Amino acid sequence: MPYDECYVKSVIRTVADWPEKGVMFRDITPIFKDPKALRMVTDDFIQRYIGTDITHIASIDARGFLISSIMAYHLNLPLVLVRKKGKLPGKTIQADYALEYGTATVEMQIDAVGPGDRVLIFDDLIATGGTILAASTLIKELGASVYEAAALIDLPDLEGSTRIQDAGIPVHTLLAYEGL
Amino acid sequence: MPYDECYVKSVIRTVADWPEKGVMFRDITPIFKDPKALRMVTDDFIQRYIGTDITHIASIDARGFLISSIMAYHLNLPLVLVRKKGKLPGKTIQADYALEYGTATVEMQIDAVGPGDRVLIFDDLIATGGTILAASTLIKELGASVYEAAALIDLPDLEGSTRIQDAGIPVHTLLAYEGL
Repeated sequence: MPYDECYVKSVIRTVADWPEKGVMFRDITPIFKDPKALRMVTDDFIQRYIGTDITHIASIDARGFLISSIMAYHLNLPLVLVRKKGKLPGKTIQADYALEYGTATVEMQIDAVGPGDRVLIFDDLIATGGTILAASTLIKELGASVYEAAALIDLPDLEGSTRIQDAGIPVHTLLAYEGL
Repeated sequence: MPYDECYVKSVIRTVADWPEKGVMFRDITPIFKDPKALRMVTDDFIQRYIGTDITHIASIDARGFLISSIMAYHLNLPLVLVRKKGKLPGKTIQADYALEYGTATVEMQIDAVGPGDRVLIFDDLIATGGTILAASTLIKELGASVYEAAALIDLPDLEGSTRIQDAGIPVHTLLAYEGL
C-alpha cells in the first residue's frame, strides 16, 4: 500500500513531559502495534534502497533495530549493530558523544564493516544527531564510508540533521516534528 | 531455503569468558550480518506461527527486537515491546526478576495487550528464564494469555526453559548449547 504520511502521523503518539518536563516525546511504539503502519514505513525505506550500492545497514540500539532488521531481511543486506557500551562481545571500538549532561559511548565490533563498504546508518529518530555522528566515526575508523543516515522521525529544531549533513552525510527521514 | 541447523550453528560465534570469566557467550550478531542465516531462522519461526491464533508478539529488548520485528511484519501481527525500566513512555506496568546479584525490572505499556489476546513472547536466548517469566507476569496482569515462549537459543543447563514450561508456558527454540 502507498505511503500515507497522515496515516503514519495519526498512529504516532505524543507523550508530554517525558522523559523530562518540557519534552514532547514522539512515541513510535503504536507503529509496531499496527501492522498496516509498520508495512507502510518499512516498505517505503526498502523501496528507497533497492538497487543502490549500499553494502551494509548499521542499526542503532534499540528502537533502530526494529525497522532496520526488516529492511535488511528484504534487501538481503548484512545488518551490523551499533550498541551502547558493554553490550557487544568480542573486539570492539568505541566513540563518545555529548549528551545534555555528560557523555555516552557507542560501540561496534571491529569486523562489522571494512574498507570498501558503503554503509547506511539507521535510527528511529534524529534529535541532536550525536548517536549517528558517533556511529559514523566508528564506520569510518573501520575503513568504510557512510552512504546516508536514515530515520523515521526528524526533530529539525534540535538541528541534528543539519549537523549530520554538515559532516558530509546525506540524511533521509520520513516525518518531521517541530519543537523538542 | 530450508532450515539448516549446522549452517546456523556455524555462523554463531562463541566468545569465551564474556561478559565474565567462565561464561561461553553465544554471539548471534554474525546471524544478522549473514542474509542467508537471517532468512533461515526468521522464516522458520514465521512458518511455525502462520495459521495459529496468536494475536500479538511480545518482543524482548533488545536482541529479541531484531528477529521478532521481521516475524511481526510477515505475520501481519502487532508487535508490543517488553523493555528495561524507564525506556517506555506513557502508563506502564513493571515486573521484577532475579539476577545472579540483585534484581532487574521489565516494563510494558498498559495498552500493549488486553483480555482475550493470545501472546507469543520472543527473545533471542533462554538462560535462566527470568525475563520471559517476568514478561509473562505482565501479559497476564493485562488480562491476556501467553501462547508460547520462543527463542533462537536455549541453554538447557541453566534450566530456564524447564522453569517456563513448569509455569504452564510451552517453549520453542531452534538451537541448544550445553554449558553456561
